[in-house]
Amino acid sequence: MDNAQGLTWRKQASGIWSAKLGSPPELNPLSVTGMKPKLTALERMNTAELPFSLEEIETERTSGGWMLRIPLTQHEQVYGFGLQFMKMNHRGRTRYLRVNSDPKQDTGESHAPVPFYVTDRGYGLLINTARIVTVHCGSTVRRGERSEGEARDRNSDSHWKATPDSGKIEILLPMEGAEIVLFAGETMLDVVRRYNLFSGGGTLPPRWGLGFWHRVPTGYDSSDVIREALEFRERGIPCDVIGLEPGWHSKSYPVTFDWSPERFPNPAEFMKTMEKMGFRVNLWEHPYVSPEAEGYEDVAGLSGNYSVWGGAAPDYSLPEVQDWYSGLHERKHADIGIAGYKLDECDGSELTGHSWMFPAHARFPSGYDGEQMRQLYGLLLQQLTSGLFRRRNRRTYGLVRASNAGAAPLPYVLYSDLYDHRQFVRALCNSSFSGLLWTPEVRSAANAEDWVRRMQTVCFSPLAMLNAWGDGTKPWSYPEAEPIVRRYIKLRMRLIPYLYSVFAQYDAEGTPPFLAMPLIPDRGPARRKNTEGRGGTVPDTAEGAYGRSGGDLWDDQYMIGGSLLVAPMFAGETSRKVYLPEGVWYGLETGERWTGGQAIHIQASLDRIPVFVRDGAVLPLMPALPAVPRAGERVPLDIYHFGESPGRFLLYEDDGETFDYEQGDCAWRTLEVRKRDDGTFAGSVSGHPDPKASGYESFRWHFAQTRLTMDD
Amino acid sequence: MDNAQGLTWRKQASGIWSAKLGSPPELNPLSVTGMKPKLTALERMNTAELPFSLEEIETERTSGGWMLRIPLTQHEQVYGFGLQFMKMNHRGRTRYLRVNSDPKQDTGESHAPVPFYVTDRGYGLLINTARIVTVHCGSTVRRGERSEGEARDRNSDSHWKATPDSGKIEILLPMEGAEIVLFAGETMLDVVRRYNLFSGGGTLPPRWGLGFWHRVPTGYDSSDVIREALEFRERGIPCDVIGLEPGWHSKSYPVTFDWSPERFPNPAEFMKTMEKMGFRVNLWEHPYVSPEAEGYEDVAGLSGNYSVWGGAAPDYSLPEVQDWYSGLHERKHADIGIAGYKLDECDGSELTGHSWMFPAHARFPSGYDGEQMRQLYGLLLQQLTSGLFRRRNRRTYGLVRASNAGAAPLPYVLYSDLYDHRQFVRALCNSSFSGLLWTPEVRSAANAEDWVRRMQTVCFSPLAMLNAWGDGTKPWSYPEAEPIVRRYIKLRMRLIPYLYSVFAQYDAEGTPPFLAMPLIPDRGPARRKNTEGRGGTVPDTAEGAYGRSGGDLWDDQYMIGGSLLVAPMFAGETSRKVYLPEGVWYGLETGERWTGGQAIHIQASLDRIPVFVRDGAVLPLMPALPAVPRAGERVPLDIYHFGESPGRFLLYEDDGETFDYEQGDCAWRTLEVRKRDDGTFAGSVSGHPDPKASGYESFRWHFAQTRLTMDD
Repeated sequence: MDNAQGLTWRKQASGIWSAKLGSPPELNPLSVTGMKPKLTALERMNTAELPFSLEEIETERTSGGWMLRIPLTQHEQVYGFGLQFMKMNHRGRTRYLRVNSDPKQDTGESHAPVPFYVTDRGYGLLINTARIVTVHCGSTVRRGERSEGEARDRNSDSHWKATPDSGKIEILLPMEGAEIVLFAGETMLDVVRRYNLFSGGGTLPPRWGLGFWHRVPTGYDSSDVIREALEFRERGIPCDVIGLEPGWHSKSYPVTFDWSPERFPNPAEFMKTMEKMGFRVNLWEHPYVSPEAEGYEDVAGLSGNYSVWGGAAPDYSLPEVQDWYSGLHERKHADIGIAGYKLDECDGSELTGHSWMFPAHARFPSGYDGEQMRQLYGLLLQQLTSGLFRRRNRRTYGLVRASNAGAAPLPYVLYSDLYDHRQFVRALCNSSFSGLLWTPEVRSAANAEDWVRRMQTVCFSPLAMLNAWGDGTKPWSYPEAEPIVRRYIKLRMRLIPYLYSVFAQYDAEGTPPFLAMPLIPDRGPARRKNTEGRGGTVPDTAEGAYGRSGGDLWDDQYMIGGSLLVAPMFAGETSRKVYLPEGVWYGLETGERWTGGQAIHIQASLDRIPVFVRDGAVLPLMPALPAVPRAGERVPLDIYHFGESPGRFLLYEDDGETFDYEQGDCAWRTLEVRKRDDGTFAGSVSGHPDPKASGYESFRWHFAQTRLTMDD
Repeated sequence: MDNAQGLTWRKQASGIWSAKLGSPPELNPLSVTGMKPKLTALERMNTAELPFSLEEIETERTSGGWMLRIPLTQHEQVYGFGLQFMKMNHRGRTRYLRVNSDPKQDTGESHAPVPFYVTDRGYGLLINTARIVTVHCGSTVRRGERSEGEARDRNSDSHWKATPDSGKIEILLPMEGAEIVLFAGETMLDVVRRYNLFSGGGTLPPRWGLGFWHRVPTGYDSSDVIREALEFRERGIPCDVIGLEPGWHSKSYPVTFDWSPERFPNPAEFMKTMEKMGFRVNLWEHPYVSPEAEGYEDVAGLSGNYSVWGGAAPDYSLPEVQDWYSGLHERKHADIGIAGYKLDECDGSELTGHSWMFPAHARFPSGYDGEQMRQLYGLLLQQLTSGLFRRRNRRTYGLVRASNAGAAPLPYVLYSDLYDHRQFVRALCNSSFSGLLWTPEVRSAANAEDWVRRMQTVCFSPLAMLNAWGDGTKPWSYPEAEPIVRRYIKLRMRLIPYLYSVFAQYDAEGTPPFLAMPLIPDRGPARRKNTEGRGGTVPDTAEGAYGRSGGDLWDDQYMIGGSLLVAPMFAGETSRKVYLPEGVWYGLETGERWTGGQAIHIQASLDRIPVFVRDGAVLPLMPALPAVPRAGERVPLDIYHFGESPGRFLLYEDDGETFDYEQGDCAWRTLEVRKRDDGTFAGSVSGHPDPKASGYESFRWHFAQTRLTMDD
């Protein structure tokens, strides 16, 4: 049992080391995405060393598999593990990283439980495995180790706490072993950037993906869809993507992948109409194949030995299955202009009334089992569908309900059947630690206030979407709230030059476009150095701004790029606390000036979501068009400079739709605001536009602003 | 992987067969309890065969362990799996049977997840293992098997459902294998009786255990306890047991097992006072040993290699540890008259703020690991503490928060930190399928109505207890409700001759004292034969009485013995539906006459819990004394006969405190009511009282009653 084994570490790039424990199988998250690390970008980063020596990592054989033991210091905080709804800092918790559609308890299970974490001591660790991993984040204490003997008395000791002080993170790896990858970084952000670049860099969505999305109700036919799309134009509400939900298929549980002849008798004609109206179309589907699907007979033999909803669960790791799936999707969808997919139900559930998924003991023709396939199903489908568009030199952007490690380069955003607004914001924050994107999609609301608060949040998220599949809501469903909702959907459209540039940095530098607060460099009084760490900053959980009762490390606010801080409001609230990192900040719409490095208390009426802009920020904004410009279309740019300090912004341009940017067909232009000796400001734009880009025909500068002065 | 293996089945007793798969380790639930099957009682049962041939059971090696596949018919219902809060019928679910303190989702995890189920086709199956077992109760469908090809279309088919029609129960056993035991039975009740008798028969609590229990608040000292106990006597509220909570120990998290010198300076004196006042004392404790406990140095070396709350987690499977624990408990507790324990925290949790338990990969000196120890910890402690009293020839009755298979003979009742009243009733029902007992303990309440409804329920449960450890509530905490609460605590006391006899049948015949409705023989119109089964009855879930929307097989009502049916009310309700099995029934307190074999709708004001008595029932009741009689004390008996039919009841008597009944020092006397030719009734008592019994000095007959007419 004790059979400890030395790990042989190989340096993969500056600040990245890997080792293999046991004899891991060939199928794993990184083998599925098949991406190459972005070595050039990695080389450009600051060098960094691990905060401990590699010899301090212990391994041990246990009855259940391999155990890995990593040093953990006293105040060290642990973040990551993919999409997590309940906690941001996992210190003291045990995380059971199983793909599961019902993440209603704080176990670590989730739609996208990534076996990657980062700590504020300045390192990250990835277990590259298709199996379920259990991580004890300081929730275990071995007898005879550091904290042994700190027994307290709950009878009388007010300092007694259930969670022990542990000196180790313990990770239970599968019996067959796995690859372990370590990432160093001077800051947590650098660690996360290394992880993202090692995964192949972050995704750069097509520009239309950053517009507004609307999913129509289940059972709609083509004329229902066209009528509803038209209403967006008539009401002056921007919208780029219409999503079709169950009902467009001839059969949906299991699926045929083919159009319903009753509801969509002429899909090509339907798509032409949608394109003329300026809409992209996204199709809902799931992985389980109806016996009535084209090619079912062949694919059934290439499927797992358990059915789901009476359909086959294909072995999507097999090239033959991939060819069948891609061929069908190309002929039926991509050839007529479908822009992407919503990949549903690929996570699985065992709960009441929804016990569906092949079991862990299912066997697949590739030799892998149900546990491995379930952990990777979402990743396999993302890879397969995005590859389909890549071969046509078109970018896609879509939705997926399951993911895993290495997903940063995949153009997919996670969602869930859960619907707690606070959890949705926490999930958005947490996703930034592990190369994931999350949409706090709006479906319905308890009342107009809840509706507005949710719509405001989603407009400041990776995918701004109303998903009306079940409720049939529209942006104008609450007439009294329609003006507010329209204003924020328009503001979303205006922000696209900023958002798109921020995503381009995700691709190029690995910097998450949306960032949880612990990733933000800050030396304000509310933070202090991790005394045992080296360079990471750590919030003080015991007192000060981070100690507010019931809170958890400001998991209800986040940043978009380096300039915008979003602090969503929740129904029932008229005020909230916001932590502003050091420096000076302005209310984006209120113009109020705030000094950062502290928590502030703000009021916010229903017509405002609190968004803050850094002093010196340079925000490029475009007009609130009905839809984003197509490749080559040019629009005027308004450049807002905020506050008293000079500043700069790297504006990214390309055609917004293809992969030509990878061959250099793109431009990074610096928007620079200098302060003249007389105290006035001057702006300049460096470089030249990319000729194919859907770029900007003019630049209008607005210096020293304290709020957005554009029309509502 | 496919390496199927023939099982070699051995007949263990009439209607019981066992086989071993793989090479199971020696430690398992049945090895821990160490009980001998009650062969004589088993031989007295009707013979029964399995509803399928043993050859139909398939085994298969999978990547995760061994798989067992059992035939499942189309309408077969699956019950059991120990303490379950969310569901009664597990058909279509996947049960992950891990011991877990946070059973808030319907996964199968629970304080006492027993790997035993029974189906209405007339058989039961036990996996006798210390490892976590996963059971797919018809939630998996292999391609090519029965239901393959039944794909439906959720778009348009209202019959679409998420849960498939499966032809197999699939059970994932641990890699090392396990013993499998099959039980046949003409009815589900017979299957459960076989399981209980095979486990060693049901527990017979000391008679005082069936009285009222009160647990005092944490931190109380000896005079606080005495004062509170006295108040019960002063207010005329019966009470037999006072439970001490955290605070009586010198240290409690981890524990010393020794008295606090501040709060209990003279435990022996305290115990004498309590005894004089007629109270038994029960001590709260948990398994994790404080470094300040006597003998810690020795026991630490015999413990798992992980600490819990800074204390040692002893290997309670080792004789040396058992000796140390027993010795300490005898000297400190049993020698001065402590009557039993509440064994807390032996289940473990990974959730927020309560991440405590040795990990699954912990190693114990016996060679077993953390997974095995966690699954068995509750069982080990039950066995250890009950053995301690058995050696003194005294019965105990206590509380435990974790259990497993084979627990029927152990004198322990389960409880939880959960507090949903409906779930508490469902848990009481579900426990009856797997040899467990559960108390819907009362702690606090949202309001007086909730308080009364919970107090009424607990008075008709295996352990009638107010657990005021955290809230400091008393039976008189809601003054307006005190008369109602007093009346039901008194009724509980009156019912003890009935309850005690019903428990004696649990011991002798394996018949659960509290029974879920599917265990009740009934051929009423609301039930029909399982068309593919042989003799079992099955509720019709699609229509009729069992089809009420939102309901689940009458999991909110239960029977006590063969005569009483309890249908608790929940706060906010003034009426409810009750299913009455075939025959005639009377409202115990209302006298209303009902025809069974159907669901009825009843009204119930706050001062009444709906309890129904069968026509012909013979209920023995004793006076509502302050505490149950001690051994040898004799009280008068009132025998209530209900309705129009003759009837009989087996009255059990013994000393109520020792194990002498096992040597024949007990009496089974038949209370018989005959109908004379003139239509009047006559009663007789067969046999002689046991000379040592705390029996009955007189018998007063009340014939043809329709309600209880005793004073409130």
